[in-house]
This record gives sequence, C-alpha cells and structure tokens, in this order.
Amino acid sequence: MSREPNVIYVGRKPPMNYVLGIITSFSRANAKEVTLKARGQAITTAVDAVEITRHRFIKDLSIGKITIGTEEMPPREGESRAMNVSTIEITLTKAENPPSESNTGSSSS
Amino acid sequence: MSREPNVIYVGRKPPMNYVLGIITSFSRANAKEVTLKARGQAITTAVDAVEITRHRFIKDLSIGKITIGTEEMPPREGESRAMNVSTIEITLTKAENPPSESNTGSSSS
Repeated sequence: MSREPNVIYVGRKPPMNYVLGIITSFSRANAKEVTLKARGQAITTAVDAVEITRHRFIKDLSIGKITIGTEEMPPREGESRAMNVSTIEITLTKAENPPSESNTGSSSS
Repeated sequence: MSREPNVIYVGRKPPMNYVLGIITSFSRANAKEVTLKARGQAITTAVDAVEITRHRFIKDLSIGKITIGTEEMPPREGESRAMNVSTIEITLTKAENPPSESNTGSSSS
C-alpha cells in the first residue's frame, strides 16, 4: 500500500488500458486521489485516458492539479547527447459519496 | 494579427515554431499572458513548446493554468460517427519587468 499505489505511469498502450487502471485504483484502494504520469508522446495518451474516464466511467471525477516539466533522458545508442523530454502529471480526485441517498438512480443517460 | 492576439493554436509543426510564437507574442504585444491551445497529438507539441521556451528563452515565464477537455470532431470522410479528441490549454504569464532600471543587462546567464 505504500510504494506509490496511486500513481499510474502512462506509456505506449492504448488509452483504455490506463482508463482501467484509473478505475481500478479508485475502487480497489478506495483512494481519493490518483496521479497519472507520462512523458513524450504518452502525454496525449494520459490526457485521453483522463477524458475518457471522466466522461464515460466516473462522472464525479475531478481534475486536481496538472503540472508539466522536463526530464533529461540518457543518450540513446549511437547518439552522443542527452535528450530532453517533456512530462506531465495529472492528479485526479473523486468526490466523496454523498452521505445520504445511496442510490439516487443516476444511471447513465 | 488575429482576433485573439494572445492565443496560439498548436498544430503539426515542430515545437520551435510555437516557441517563436510565444516569444513574439510576449514581446510584440507586450502581453502579460499568452495561451496555447492544442488538441490530439499536438498536446505533446504544446507541452514541448512551453518547456523549451521557459528553459531556454524566457527564464521568468511561469505557467498559470492548465486545463484539459474534450472536443467533438465531425466525422471524417468515409466514417459515420463523430470522434472525440482531447484538448489542452496552457496559460503562460511573464513576471513583470522590474519598474526601475530599464536595462539591467540581464542577459541570459
């Protein structure tokens, strides 16, 4: 439960993989906050995953903080200089369940 | 040059094109705020452009607000359903010039 259970690293898989990761994190760990981290082209995937999650699956998801940054990557084989790559971190929070009326019949429209 | 002088739409060009756009907007319009808008894969380009600008060119640039969203695109030729595409808006602000000493010789360190 401690090695950053609520951080999802977004890579080259399709966005739906990470959507599932977000949903699982929120439900399994009963977390209030989940953070997505991505770099390079995966930044778009991270944004896609968040948007799909909150429009289709978790309606009461809200986007907390979004930060961008730069990381230095070691040079690839055959190259001599380090590359800079952009990063993004998106923190998601889920509204608390309303204390009353457990089932307000809010099925998807 | 356009109806929203301080908005830069990021598309498929290399990030340096938009870096130049940011620098130009801040200097020509003497703007305090410039907003980058991008969608789809250009989201990464927008983040790259911001990161390059603030690390290499405008050291006192700060990132104001970052918002993400979804836009519905009309169906492409030969397709029947609309596509959703993720969007990002990044607002940049530049620290005020110190009011005294117009030329403090603050060349890049």
